[in-house]
Amino acid sequence: MASVQDIVVAASINLLSVLAFLLAFAFLRLQPFCDRVYFPKWYKKGIRESPKKTGTALKKFVNLDFRTYLRFWKWMPEALRMPEPELIEHAGLDAAVYVRIYLLGLKIFVPITFLAFAVLVPINWTGESLDKIKDITYSNIDKLSISNVSPGSLRFIAHIAMAYVFTFWTCYSLYKEYKIVMTKRLEFLAAENRRPDQFTVLVRNVPPDPDESVSEHVEHFFCVNHADTYLMHQVVYNANKLATLVETKKGLHNWQTYYQTRYERNPKARPRTKKGFWGLWGENVDAIDYYTAEIEKINGEEAAEREKVMSDPNAIVPAAFVSFRSRWGAAVCAQTQQSSNPTIWLTEWAPEPRNVYWENLAIPYVELAVKRLLMAVAMFFLTFFFMIPIAFVQSMASIEGIEKVFPFLKPVIETERVKSVVQGFLPGIALKIFLVLLPTILMSMSKVEGLTSFSSLDRRTAGKYHLFIIVNVFFGSIITGAAFEQLQKFLNQAPSEIPRTVGVAIPMKATFFITYIMVDGWAGIAAEVLRIVPLVLFHLKNTFIVKTEKDREEAMDAGGINFYITEPRIQLYFLLGLVYATVTPFILPFIIVFFAFAYLVFRHQIINVYDQKYESAASFWPDIHRRVIIGLIMSQLLLMGLLSTKGVSKSTPVLLVLPVLTIWFHRFCKGRFESAFVKFPLQDAVIKDTLEKATEPNLDLKAYLHNAYTHPVFKPVEAERTVFIDEEENNPLVTTKRTSRRENGGGGRGGDGGGGSKPDSGRVTPRVVLD
Amino acid sequence: MASVQDIVVAASINLLSVLAFLLAFAFLRLQPFCDRVYFPKWYKKGIRESPKKTGTALKKFVNLDFRTYLRFWKWMPEALRMPEPELIEHAGLDAAVYVRIYLLGLKIFVPITFLAFAVLVPINWTGESLDKIKDITYSNIDKLSISNVSPGSLRFIAHIAMAYVFTFWTCYSLYKEYKIVMTKRLEFLAAENRRPDQFTVLVRNVPPDPDESVSEHVEHFFCVNHADTYLMHQVVYNANKLATLVETKKGLHNWQTYYQTRYERNPKARPRTKKGFWGLWGENVDAIDYYTAEIEKINGEEAAEREKVMSDPNAIVPAAFVSFRSRWGAAVCAQTQQSSNPTIWLTEWAPEPRNVYWENLAIPYVELAVKRLLMAVAMFFLTFFFMIPIAFVQSMASIEGIEKVFPFLKPVIETERVKSVVQGFLPGIALKIFLVLLPTILMSMSKVEGLTSFSSLDRRTAGKYHLFIIVNVFFGSIITGAAFEQLQKFLNQAPSEIPRTVGVAIPMKATFFITYIMVDGWAGIAAEVLRIVPLVLFHLKNTFIVKTEKDREEAMDAGGINFYITEPRIQLYFLLGLVYATVTPFILPFIIVFFAFAYLVFRHQIINVYDQKYESAASFWPDIHRRVIIGLIMSQLLLMGLLSTKGVSKSTPVLLVLPVLTIWFHRFCKGRFESAFVKFPLQDAVIKDTLEKATEPNLDLKAYLHNAYTHPVFKPVEAERTVFIDEEENNPLVTTKRTSRRENGGGGRGGDGGGGSKPDSGRVTPRVVLD
Repeated sequence: MASVQDIVVAASINLLSVLAFLLAFAFLRLQPFCDRVYFPKWYKKGIRESPKKTGTALKKFVNLDFRTYLRFWKWMPEALRMPEPELIEHAGLDAAVYVRIYLLGLKIFVPITFLAFAVLVPINWTGESLDKIKDITYSNIDKLSISNVSPGSLRFIAHIAMAYVFTFWTCYSLYKEYKIVMTKRLEFLAAENRRPDQFTVLVRNVPPDPDESVSEHVEHFFCVNHADTYLMHQVVYNANKLATLVETKKGLHNWQTYYQTRYERNPKARPRTKKGFWGLWGENVDAIDYYTAEIEKINGEEAAEREKVMSDPNAIVPAAFVSFRSRWGAAVCAQTQQSSNPTIWLTEWAPEPRNVYWENLAIPYVELAVKRLLMAVAMFFLTFFFMIPIAFVQSMASIEGIEKVFPFLKPVIETERVKSVVQGFLPGIALKIFLVLLPTILMSMSKVEGLTSFSSLDRRTAGKYHLFIIVNVFFGSIITGAAFEQLQKFLNQAPSEIPRTVGVAIPMKATFFITYIMVDGWAGIAAEVLRIVPLVLFHLKNTFIVKTEKDREEAMDAGGINFYITEPRIQLYFLLGLVYATVTPFILPFIIVFFAFAYLVFRHQIINVYDQKYESAASFWPDIHRRVIIGLIMSQLLLMGLLSTKGVSKSTPVLLVLPVLTIWFHRFCKGRFESAFVKFPLQDAVIKDTLEKATEPNLDLKAYLHNAYTHPVFKPVEAERTVFIDEEENNPLVTTKRTSRRENGGGGRGGDGGGGSKPDSGRVTPRVVLD
Repeated sequence: MASVQDIVVAASINLLSVLAFLLAFAFLRLQPFCDRVYFPKWYKKGIRESPKKTGTALKKFVNLDFRTYLRFWKWMPEALRMPEPELIEHAGLDAAVYVRIYLLGLKIFVPITFLAFAVLVPINWTGESLDKIKDITYSNIDKLSISNVSPGSLRFIAHIAMAYVFTFWTCYSLYKEYKIVMTKRLEFLAAENRRPDQFTVLVRNVPPDPDESVSEHVEHFFCVNHADTYLMHQVVYNANKLATLVETKKGLHNWQTYYQTRYERNPKARPRTKKGFWGLWGENVDAIDYYTAEIEKINGEEAAEREKVMSDPNAIVPAAFVSFRSRWGAAVCAQTQQSSNPTIWLTEWAPEPRNVYWENLAIPYVELAVKRLLMAVAMFFLTFFFMIPIAFVQSMASIEGIEKVFPFLKPVIETERVKSVVQGFLPGIALKIFLVLLPTILMSMSKVEGLTSFSSLDRRTAGKYHLFIIVNVFFGSIITGAAFEQLQKFLNQAPSEIPRTVGVAIPMKATFFITYIMVDGWAGIAAEVLRIVPLVLFHLKNTFIVKTEKDREEAMDAGGINFYITEPRIQLYFLLGLVYATVTPFILPFIIVFFAFAYLVFRHQIINVYDQKYESAASFWPDIHRRVIIGLIMSQLLLMGLLSTKGVSKSTPVLLVLPVLTIWFHRFCKGRFESAFVKFPLQDAVIKDTLEKATEPNLDLKAYLHNAYTHPVFKPVEAERTVFIDEEENNPLVTTKRTSRRENGGGGRGGDGGGGSKPDSGRVTPRVVLD
């Protein structure tokens, strides 16, 4: 096991790389040519304008104001400065609550760390169990851990007591946080502007009717069963093919622009391309002509398909968005059962228009049930047996495998140097590629399951990824060996034996996880802030494709929090912290650094970079809560197993109380808070309805909702920003001409284009400080 | 292990005792003095009148018409003759669906038995594995079981194939039955008369308001949030103390009547009693005077308490029954969330008035959560550690224990004969008493959990009892030893080892379970039809307490299906049948006989005897379905374990598909059917509302609902039958004067006093045949 010195060395190396990333970021973010990569959020909001428009040619690309370099660290306090209500207005509740996960980590682990270092570390240190055993080597870290307490010692009482204290503190923090998030969500929903989804319910599985079209059937059904509140409905067209055509056209258009640009720069040679895939093979043709012709062709196809979809009754799927006269009516319809057959006329609160996942709106009940079964089975095999295909690919990717497929490479890779690289590199790369692709694979699995909104897809995928991480990263690192070997081992072990096997291995893996935290946690977060991939992509696009300001807007690619990728990874740190709090408290400071640093970076990112695709008003919080609870229960069981091997098996009943209480606590919180994240209470609906009726008695709701739920491909391009943004365009958004470097990256605010924030225009003051 | 001959002997003995019970029943039911015990249902409905009013004195008590004795078996076809729609009208849907559980047992097991005997029995019989092993004794039953197939034989393919067939057949039957029951429930609800609970919602956890009383607060809240549909509400008084007083008074009244009767029969000596508990000790006083004075006293107390409850605002609990103008309004309110705080303003569909469990209407959310936790822990200990207090009591109940407490008994119990009886009898009796009391204990645990209706109490208790039976009867019989020993054993065994341990023991226990089925199943059902306890009690009451016709009505004590006791026991037979279908098919005919016999008996009982306390419209079916599924999955896992010890461990993955598919099937059915048992679809509500509006435009709903949800103690005694019965009193119920023995016990029908059946008076024809 590594000694403290080793850890210090590893920490230093990692800290240096983190520092390098941060310095690179601090330097690049001040350069005008990177401005759009590091501040896209402000561009999207229209508050920031391209710095290139002013100043000399050189100044347009490089920041020559050296004073600003001296304050390179200033983005950090900037990121923390924006108060939370403003953050919610600026970036939406989803993003603001997302960074609260890191805050929750700090809230839980800072007191735990102090307590652990004050109580457990001295007790472990003076345990002197390891000193007695002369023939094994041990590190100083082990002296700080529970391993140093001799079996059967009364000192374990302290660990058990601390397990209780940590559990209660964690539950208390979770409870408080759940309450805060619930309050914020309710306030957010109450303060929201009028939005189409407040009045709308998504109806699925409309039963076929021989005499009526889907549209008529929906209208008649709701006219009868919600006579007083039904207003209108919008049918859903199966525009999946059309969407593909539009997407293809966009790609072709990009290529055309690219060749056009090349031709303009070098008018002597008209660029040529090959007709095949990605221009790699096929007939050689004139590129510009070819793409122009292709676009023509696809234009025709698109028009025909558009025509077909709009006229063909079979292109209407048995689903509809039904809107009501009042929020009350929509809330009632979304929460009640319509028909005595619970598989038809399924109603749910409609996702906001840009959150709708259109492909999945029309899956019949039985098909859905079968798909879910298949995906559950697939998930099981993916989690436990993913190593088998990887191992197969790895064996293919060996020297011999390559020689077989590409015999001409033989002389090259047979050379000693290349051979060692290939042998050391290829097997790892196969696994790495799989791990990088994994969230995408899981996401497509979730899509098969038929969820109808992006937010629910994100949440479902996060659950899958969390399972995978627990099994393959946490248990996989503790008990080395492939997951299916572990599974077999667990199946052949007594249930009371499993926590023991894992528990014993836990103290030994502390140093491994410390290194993991530094590499994956610290360096990963630092890489996040640097945004290398978007940086490169932006400049490539900017050089070759960007023609208009709109193109440049699109090329910025602000991205967003990839909830389904990042959240399960955070949960790993919660799990590690809770498991090691009583065992090896030395790991805790590393976790605290991770949470603090990630909080800082993600707060900066959501202020300056990310542009969320949708706003779900923090509906993911119950998942966060549940997963921390899972981590807590795992930590309790593993401590139980560990202690039972330490000659204090009498502690088992004492510790068994903890998971029972924790599960009860979870159920209690679920009953207390969860429905606020699932249902829309009638009282709140009535308040909003009443207020609206008083302030806008002449509102034409029908006109307002007219085109809200139209498939994006049917909307005119300009209208692609959802309708309700128009509302906020009345706000006096301040367009700041940027004449100098902008130190205060966190400043400026205005109506949020997406989050449906308050149009509290009186408070919108530009904070862009000129220096 | 027992041979076929042993089984035949045991079967004969049991059949003889069953026959004795049945003959006793056939004889007693023809006697006029038992008429009220065996036909109370008809008396309650007013169709049957006491036979004593006619004929000679002797004829009033004994049936002298010997011809009727020759047709003693006629009650059996009678019981089967009433068609199901009529049965539903007569006894309610709960009872009609309850007997369908037995029918489901027949539907599942009759084809399985035929298939098992056609396929598995020949395969087992010719296995000849046991013939080879000369040194162990085996019975013929073992030759029919899977034990006779030699390890690793290919014959196991047949067992695996049959496991698939049986699973699919069971699932198919379950699916069909679920569908049938759902349809029946929906039809029943649609055909129902107007009932108060259709318009009413139970609101709990009304938050306290400093300025308003509960009543005002409720009114204001619903006037605002259900403006269009709110009609009225009824507050709930905390009348628990008053109810106790009323109950006590009733008891005193019975005693007074008893002594009055004694005095009238023997006017020479005024009866005397002692003041203490049950008249066992205390001052000796004149009994009639004493009880008269006591009743006076309690009358005063009752009046004072009544006054207090009605005037004291603190006696109003924070719960209310809120009624709406339409069924649509009630359905909406019951299914939606009212407040953003999900622990206040909890709404649920109101139970019908007689189904309300008044004591539990006012438990705050946190208290409820704590109580549930405590009950869950208590249930765990009760299930696994109940033997510890029993063993303690048993040790107390030994000779030495008795001698200690009652030293004066020493000479008596020291005699050899008494000693042996005490030693053999006492320990067993302690366990027996516990097992008899168990359902009551479980019921009081469910009551602590705060359920608000008798039907949900029944269902919850049945779930607890089912768990207890599976752990202590099924596993307890297979792996002998106390439950906590099993628990320890299981915890220290690998999960894959548990089905193996249990699976191996299963074939060996077949004969034990056959005996169990005959004693508990056959004889138990025969005892049910005889109704010994109600018979004795009725005659005691009739002799001493009954004064008026109303008293006699009450003394009949028709009872009901004790769902929470009987249903979990049925599930044991499903479990046994499914487990043994592939292992020892010889057990199946015994189970079929049980189901057929129980179907017959319970059909007879619900037609002639039981008077259900409430009608829940078969809302228990999802539980039945789930428990059969649990049995099915257990059978699959145990077969897997058994086969893996038979040298065909390769079968495990093949068999593992079955539980996965079964769980999926369960989820599918849950989604498909369950909500019909939980929610009330708006479409159905609208249909009923519209119909009502058309037929009765001038209905005064407020007057109709006026007193519907008043605590029973506040109702005038005559009005104790719930209000909606009045509706059906318009029906021309035919009061049949009974001049002769009534052969056709299953005949006659009319509006159901409780079940809210159709007042389809045109079809009500008296079927009482005079012979």
